[in-house]
Amino acid sequence: MKPLLVTMGDAAGIGPEIIVHAFRAGELADAVVLGDPAVLRRAGSAMTAVITTPENLAAVPPGCLPVLVPPGLPAGLATLPLGQVHADNGAAAARCIEHAVRLVQAGQGAAIVTAPINKAALAAAGVPYPGHTEMLHALAATAGQAPSVRMMLANDELRVVLVTIHLSLRRALDAVTFDAVLGTLRIAHRAAAAWGQVQPRIAVAGLNPHAGEGGLFGDEELTIIGPAVQAALAEGIDASGPYAPDTVFMRARRGEFDLVVAMTHDHGLIPVKYLGVEQGVNVTLGLPFMRTSPDHGTAFDIAGKGLADPASFVAALRWARRSLAASVVD
Amino acid sequence: MKPLLVTMGDAAGIGPEIIVHAFRAGELADAVVLGDPAVLRRAGSAMTAVITTPENLAAVPPGCLPVLVPPGLPAGLATLPLGQVHADNGAAAARCIEHAVRLVQAGQGAAIVTAPINKAALAAAGVPYPGHTEMLHALAATAGQAPSVRMMLANDELRVVLVTIHLSLRRALDAVTFDAVLGTLRIAHRAAAAWGQVQPRIAVAGLNPHAGEGGLFGDEELTIIGPAVQAALAEGIDASGPYAPDTVFMRARRGEFDLVVAMTHDHGLIPVKYLGVEQGVNVTLGLPFMRTSPDHGTAFDIAGKGLADPASFVAALRWARRSLAASVVD
Repeated sequence: MKPLLVTMGDAAGIGPEIIVHAFRAGELADAVVLGDPAVLRRAGSAMTAVITTPENLAAVPPGCLPVLVPPGLPAGLATLPLGQVHADNGAAAARCIEHAVRLVQAGQGAAIVTAPINKAALAAAGVPYPGHTEMLHALAATAGQAPSVRMMLANDELRVVLVTIHLSLRRALDAVTFDAVLGTLRIAHRAAAAWGQVQPRIAVAGLNPHAGEGGLFGDEELTIIGPAVQAALAEGIDASGPYAPDTVFMRARRGEFDLVVAMTHDHGLIPVKYLGVEQGVNVTLGLPFMRTSPDHGTAFDIAGKGLADPASFVAALRWARRSLAASVVD
Repeated sequence: MKPLLVTMGDAAGIGPEIIVHAFRAGELADAVVLGDPAVLRRAGSAMTAVITTPENLAAVPPGCLPVLVPPGLPAGLATLPLGQVHADNGAAAARCIEHAVRLVQAGQGAAIVTAPINKAALAAAGVPYPGHTEMLHALAATAGQAPSVRMMLANDELRVVLVTIHLSLRRALDAVTFDAVLGTLRIAHRAAAAWGQVQPRIAVAGLNPHAGEGGLFGDEELTIIGPAVQAALAEGIDASGPYAPDTVFMRARRGEFDLVVAMTHDHGLIPVKYLGVEQGVNVTLGLPFMRTSPDHGTAFDIAGKGLADPASFVAALRWARRSLAASVVD
């Protein structure tokens, strides 16, 4: 099988540490890290082996962390302070992601697993994306056509796909359109085959309290969300709703649905994170390749202190591996 | 001690059943039910004793459910079908609530615990309130001045006080003002003494994803919520935030905060209900008296079928009783 491609994330955050943790725990046996060997050594890696193409992975001696240095990586990253925003770290994070996409598109990687990046560092480096999802969306464009993608957050109990993500709540309201909801249902339906659910039972959460209470507390359920659910049903998607946002996640947790489509970032992420972020995985749906990441940020406040928990990152590695195994084709 | 006043709720819903369940379980020993004796007998009460004033509670024989019939209660409620909206049931529910408020204001009751009402039935009866909170707010007005009230949802792990409730999300955005947020913090701070927390650690959730990410995803945190938190701090309230909505509830659950102030109905209610509604209690803060209710509706689909779970109602009774015991004065 082709290797997983792991991006280092922001060098001043906990990304390098959790990568080293995961490597020591045997979770990176089939993976190549895109990043800076010196940063990974600072994060605790005893030995790193620099390779120039993922195909050389088999030649890396046991106990050596295989690192591929992407073109254009800024020099001297390991001398920059931990826990602080720096444009070079933002640029480095972007170079790793760009190169990972190129490699996977060239058939040299099976999937991408990304360590956390810092939005302020990206911005300082002139990278115009608020997050991985938006950046991958742009990088995956072929002939100027970007695929439609959605963010999914998943843990052992709940899978949530978001219609809108990094927008103010006011702008998110305007972004909840018939096309956006139906598009999310199509993407979620198609993607679920990757983790073995060919006909997932998809619950659609409403936008307003009590899903609008029949129009009394807002009409988006009647004019937008309900019609999108009906259109999805007509296409053979097992969608239902819109349901009251405050109970649909509890119902999915109990097994009534396989996944929930949520209209806003926080309707969807509050329940996924409520029981703890340790096991949460962020999956980008709709890309021509598999991409997962941990459900947390760079945690600048604890970077380099030996406190970072690799559990969510390990869950992201395992999710990617499991999905590749379940897919008919990768 | 003065008795708890329990309102029957909508006669076609599960309210009467859960009252009878709670009575059999010994949870109504110090309570009077405001409602229709025939409805309560239909719900399984073996014996009802009609009293005309709460003071007569002591004279009710053991094993008899004490019922006080409010003035103006429509006749024949027990002949109306279960599980269906009827204007008479809406009117009856309103009469029970109105009379309970009168009694508690006259010093004849210690607190009000309400069984669920049906909004459509209330509307059919011409009662212009979307819920108990709004109705109690109006009824508690003295000399035309209504007290400022807020809804709190609480379970064993989490207490959430809401800035906005029964509004479309679009209108809720406009209702998140400096005064509304600061008012909520004041009410929550004062009310917490009733359950023994004189200086509660109050976390304020943001409105936008990542609490606005420094203005990138909305500016309400910078222009409204942050300044309200600062103003509350200046008054000696232990408030902090605004925090990212998707992790603040998890942090409160782990013990970092005593309660969370949420801007919208579903930001607050999704986490409270995620682990199940069985133990949830709805508490109206800011009223001149204590009022609690279960964290669920009339459940018309299961009314009369013996499936209703009284746990949340029992939790509401216990919350009221515990708060009365903790209060210096009632």
